[in-house]
Order: sequence, then C-alpha cells, then structure tokens
Amino acid sequence: MKGRYFEEQERQVLEQIIRHRRTELGKNFLNREIPETVLNRLIWAALKAPSVGFSQPWEFVIIRDVSIREKIKNCFEAENEKAKQIFKDKPLYNQLKLEGITNTPVNIAMFYKPSSSPILGQTSMEKTGPYSVCLAVQNLWLMARAENIGVGWVSILDEKQVKQILHAPSENELVAYLCLGYVKEFTERPQLEIANWERPKSQESLIHYESYNTTL
Amino acid sequence: MKGRYFEEQERQVLEQIIRHRRTELGKNFLNREIPETVLNRLIWAALKAPSVGFSQPWEFVIIRDVSIREKIKNCFEAENEKAKQIFKDKPLYNQLKLEGITNTPVNIAMFYKPSSSPILGQTSMEKTGPYSVCLAVQNLWLMARAENIGVGWVSILDEKQVKQILHAPSENELVAYLCLGYVKEFTERPQLEIANWERPKSQESLIHYESYNTTL
Repeated sequence: MKGRYFEEQERQVLEQIIRHRRTELGKNFLNREIPETVLNRLIWAALKAPSVGFSQPWEFVIIRDVSIREKIKNCFEAENEKAKQIFKDKPLYNQLKLEGITNTPVNIAMFYKPSSSPILGQTSMEKTGPYSVCLAVQNLWLMARAENIGVGWVSILDEKQVKQILHAPSENELVAYLCLGYVKEFTERPQLEIANWERPKSQESLIHYESYNTTL
Repeated sequence: MKGRYFEEQERQVLEQIIRHRRTELGKNFLNREIPETVLNRLIWAALKAPSVGFSQPWEFVIIRDVSIREKIKNCFEAENEKAKQIFKDKPLYNQLKLEGITNTPVNIAMFYKPSSSPILGQTSMEKTGPYSVCLAVQNLWLMARAENIGVGWVSILDEKQVKQILHAPSENELVAYLCLGYVKEFTERPQLEIANWERPKSQESLIHYESYNTTL
C-alpha cells in the first residue's frame, strides 16, 4: 500500500479519543481562554473533513464577543420555553443546564453555503451538502477532545434569529452552533446517561446484516 | 481536570489520521476481505458518536451480499445517467469512477430512525436527527483510516429505491451509503483535487469573526 500506514498503537489513540469524547451540556465549562493557535488547530481539523464533490460547502463564524453571545442566549431561552412545554411531563428537563453559550470563551456557528452551480455527488441527494458540514463538526469535536477542550452543540435555537444576529447571507443554512471551552471534568459516561435521561442502546438492536429482512 | 488527559503526542496522531484520510472515488479499492473484528471496531466508533439528546437515532445495514450490491449499483448507474446530463459541459465527469459498490468487500447503509416521542435538543431543529447520523459516519471514517481502510460515500442514489432494496422501514431516512475496502494507495491529496475537478478553498474565505458583518 502506498501512503501513510497507521500502526495498531496509533489506532488505539483514536479509540481513546473517541471513547473519552463527551457532549458538554453546560455545567462543566471553565471560562479559561482558548489560545488562538489551539483554536486554529480545531478549525484546521474541521476544514479537512470530507465533503460532497470536494465542494467544501462550509462557512464558520467564530464568536467571542459577549454581547453577540448574549443575544444568542436570549434566543436559546425563548426556544427552551417552548421545549419545556413539550417536556412538561418530565420534570428532569428543567433541571438540566443545556448550553454553555456565555460560560465558554468561544462559540462557533457552522453554516452550509449552497453552491450556485451543480455539485458532483449532490445531484440526487441534495442534503449531502449540509451533511458535509456535519462531518466537519465531528472532525473539530474529536480534535477538541485531543486538546482537552469540551464541546457542546446548542440546537435549541431558532435558525432565522441566529442568522439575523450573525448577519448571515439568506441562502446559508445554520447546521451547528457549538460552545467550546476547557472543562472541570470529562465525565466517564455521557451526561444524559448519568442524568438518567437516556440509556445507551445495544449494538444488536441497531445493526442489520444484508437487509432489514435478513436474520443471520 | 478530571478525566482522561491527552498529551501533545496523542493530538498529533489524530492530526495525522485527519490529514491522511481520503474520500475514495472507487478505483483504488482492493477486494480483500475486512476481518469481522476490524469491522466491529469501525461500528463501535460510529456508535460512540454524539447524538442529539443522546438519542442514538441510527441504524446500520452491513452489506456483503453481492446480489444486493449489484442492485444498488444498478440504482447508481441510473442516477448517474441523470448526473451525466447535468455535467454534459464537463467531459471529465464521464471519466471519473465514482463508486466502489461491488469492488469493495463491504458496504454500509446508514439510516436515521426518527423517534416517536420528542427528543431533547431536537424540538427546534429537527434536522439534528439525521445530522447525528453524519457524526457517526465521520467517527467510522476516521477509524477506518486508522485501520488503513479506505471509505467512499456514494450519494448518486435514489433514496426510495435503496430503501426498497434493503427493505428499510418507511419512516427511516437514508443518510449515507458507504463503500469500505483496503486500497492500493492513499493519495497525497484529495482525488477530486488531483483530477482537477475542484480546488481547496482558502481558510480566509471560509472563516468570519464575530459575525458576517465584522472585519477585524
């Protein structure tokens, strides 16, 4: 094989990073600055993600400004009031801090920018455009973990309002809004598992062989 | 900080894996078997991805059966005829092999399974459901690279037909259809860059600070 060959020991490093990666709900963040060089390594990782037709259809807004982040937080609060109604039978919902918008040093809004001309690979499944941005999110997330930085994804937001606050072009789609910061602790298990909100699913229940109809 | 601390040397391993990960268009694949233990490590990585509300809304179909893969390949051929019309001004399109459906040992179809009850974090942005599946794709893709296995994402497919072929439940959404195999070569640069189809975009053109309106 031509090209970089990875050894078992290197594979194990990735396994460790994946194993210990966490979704930060919000309460473990520290407001310690993330150095510019470190942040640039996270952005580098995001930009190395695969994308449909190598279209690189992403644009990121890096937000440190507190007044902008307070506007986003207001947006979260309004949307979360609606969510509280939806979960009114689950009192646990109100006890969870679900974002770290202002108690982190950096937020990143990740947008999908549609192309004005056809993209190879996107002609039958248009959604592979925004999906490419998600691949960039995960590259960034893993690199953040390797830098011992926690990441939370805030999705309890109104996309239109976020676009207005950030003056995003009308054709852009908000894919992800991330909060990044060093943390007090990377928990042993997912925080929503610890909180007894959801349980891990078994691999057997999620994997099928050959088709949904086949039992092996 | 409590929890696993990653050292600079470990971060560099991830950087290498991200740097040398490639999207396989199809011609570099070898039809050498992927051992079950190796494939299980890729599935493990996918299942450790973050998901909205820890909902783990994914289902994977692992396909080795050649007759099923030939049906998928027929589906690709039909969709690719339409794509060739769209790119009729770019003769290069016809020269690219864009899939490794039958010249790999394993395909994986990754579906989003919507929940019948509300999911934490998904109440304002429903698309975070399928987006979670994309995060699983990228975890799998990086682990595959660490195993020196190439991955291609075939998106020139009709979702309805693929669901029929795999007998997928009607509510499931096809997110990704992956081809996996060992390769002759991991190229130094993205294959669509080498083919002069697309060029890498500059970081400066993709990153904004504070908002789209701010110049720093």
